[in-house]
Amino acid sequence: MSARHSSRITPIILSGGAGTRLWPLSRAGRPKQMLDLTGGGSMLALTAKRVAEGDLFAAPIIVAGADQAEAVAAEVPGLAQLILEPAPRNTAPAIALAALAADPEAVLLVLPSDQLIRDAEGFRDGVRRALAFAREGWIVTFGMKPERPETGYGYIERGEPLAEGVFAAARFVEKPDAATAEAWVAGGRHDWNGGIFLMRSGTYLDALDAHAPAIAKAARAAMAGARRDPSTSSGGTGVRIHPAAAAFKASPAQSIDYAVMEKAERIAVAPLSVGWSDIGSFEALHIVADKDGEGNVVVGPGLAIDARGNLIRSDGPLVAAIGVEDLVIVATHDAVLVVPRRQSQRVREAVAALKATGRDDLL
Amino acid sequence: MSARHSSRITPIILSGGAGTRLWPLSRAGRPKQMLDLTGGGSMLALTAKRVAEGDLFAAPIIVAGADQAEAVAAEVPGLAQLILEPAPRNTAPAIALAALAADPEAVLLVLPSDQLIRDAEGFRDGVRRALAFAREGWIVTFGMKPERPETGYGYIERGEPLAEGVFAAARFVEKPDAATAEAWVAGGRHDWNGGIFLMRSGTYLDALDAHAPAIAKAARAAMAGARRDPSTSSGGTGVRIHPAAAAFKASPAQSIDYAVMEKAERIAVAPLSVGWSDIGSFEALHIVADKDGEGNVVVGPGLAIDARGNLIRSDGPLVAAIGVEDLVIVATHDAVLVVPRRQSQRVREAVAALKATGRDDLL
Repeated sequence: MSARHSSRITPIILSGGAGTRLWPLSRAGRPKQMLDLTGGGSMLALTAKRVAEGDLFAAPIIVAGADQAEAVAAEVPGLAQLILEPAPRNTAPAIALAALAADPEAVLLVLPSDQLIRDAEGFRDGVRRALAFAREGWIVTFGMKPERPETGYGYIERGEPLAEGVFAAARFVEKPDAATAEAWVAGGRHDWNGGIFLMRSGTYLDALDAHAPAIAKAARAAMAGARRDPSTSSGGTGVRIHPAAAAFKASPAQSIDYAVMEKAERIAVAPLSVGWSDIGSFEALHIVADKDGEGNVVVGPGLAIDARGNLIRSDGPLVAAIGVEDLVIVATHDAVLVVPRRQSQRVREAVAALKATGRDDLL
Repeated sequence: MSARHSSRITPIILSGGAGTRLWPLSRAGRPKQMLDLTGGGSMLALTAKRVAEGDLFAAPIIVAGADQAEAVAAEVPGLAQLILEPAPRNTAPAIALAALAADPEAVLLVLPSDQLIRDAEGFRDGVRRALAFAREGWIVTFGMKPERPETGYGYIERGEPLAEGVFAAARFVEKPDAATAEAWVAGGRHDWNGGIFLMRSGTYLDALDAHAPAIAKAARAAMAGARRDPSTSSGGTGVRIHPAAAAFKASPAQSIDYAVMEKAERIAVAPLSVGWSDIGSFEALHIVADKDGEGNVVVGPGLAIDARGNLIRSDGPLVAAIGVEDLVIVATHDAVLVVPRRQSQRVREAVAALKATGRDDLL
């Protein structure tokens, strides 16, 4: 193994999870990361592009749902390995599969596939600063300096400083109430938990063995019995790996935060201010998107007439919005959503109603 | 000519006019009268059914746009004559064509094709009461007793009583302002002008000759040069008549109200209270339609979740409305309209914008 190879970071891109929070754009068969929400390509493609800097990063390993193989391959043509989860088991087991597939000496950068980072170079600089800690056995998380008292995110509290821009992580905390979020943002010691991690694969697997042995065991068994798809091993399309289904399904479904971060020693946080956004709702999409003079975001064929502050998006039919304010109006060929922008999380109620009435064709 | 034949009233159904006030349901090629807005059939079919009482009415003559021939024939299979206007010239010339096509002795009942009348039997009783006046040379209009101070309609002021439920018409007045409408509704001497008229064909043609000779002349020339479509003269589908185009286009475009009613002598008004409605806007449709417990009208695939007072209608995509109030949400396969219910007249602004941007495919 060449020194250059071993010194590069292996991106691990997590592309599982359906995500119904952007219904009717996102569907069971077209999860959020496959959507072009900002005009620059799918969230997954943008994520891969962010770590396509060849001096710093090796080709990525992607973990995705088995039904997403072709879609992922189309979005990320240069991937190294594509691990197809037999079933969703949350992030800790997914990352375990990738850690087992990676070079044992490699430093991994774990990335969700459905986030935006406006300042990609600033993000990579942050990764470079944190690299020494990861090599020394720390698990480094990237905290996102909060831009508002968001109650929909988890937060990380900074502990003692370890170096310029790197702190020991004091605590991982779940979604706060509004007053707590206000206090944290004012206090300057809490960052949003962006779900991005840097660590050696061995560090992660050791932490799993110590704190979540059932996950480690299931992932090892699943990879030991994995089938590798020979037809995909050449031509730059990456190797497709099918972990053994029964073994993997035996794993507890736990997030990396719960299984490892809240329990392990030597967790660091590197706060970044790089225009990060988890587009977890239409309200969040409205915040990051370009607006007209009246605060409307109009994507696709749409007319906003005497209308203010709306998110209007169509993948097909023309949407004419007249005299309305602060609405989300999203249209596809088979479904239309209308909801006040600040209630856009309530889309889940429509999804639940469709499920209850057997309209799975629209999910 | 048998006594029975000559004694029956000939309905004249006016089915011209595109009507963009219900866009995107109504289109250039699918005018309002072709829509099923209340679940009982198209407005045109309901209009024909209202005058299908064989003792009182002969088979109808319908005046329609040339591009609507097949649609009209499908909606009204029993029609007697279908007169296809070479170009729209408003109601006075259209009625002139029909008066010339009808039996010269016949009493005509002129009906718009895009109105609802809940009490059809009550309406026919009103026609029976007015018949003697029409036979004696009066033009009888049917005033609709106002149910609210509507500013979108014309009104007719009652003059001296002529008989039980029949008055001389004192004045035809255009859409009033809100204060005037309030005063008229309270005063009890004004009725909505429903655009429904009963008169001998000769009475109408004489009045035209006297007050709008250019219209009378153009209509006579157009009918003298008319082509009759021989393939349609049998089998109960009626004769199709194509008036001479150049002659008809020479007619001024004037309403019967302007050309005749506001000028002629011996105009009577017969006030009715029969659940009349001109569904001229989505707001009007919301008023007449069946509502759920929260005041929502939902027609087609739709979900109203924590939503109140909305008109939700889809001809295709499922519409999910969450947490919204008093909106019109109308979806078709190629267009979606969202507008506050009480501003629903503003749909014309969307239509104008589409025209201006060359989206004639959506009109």
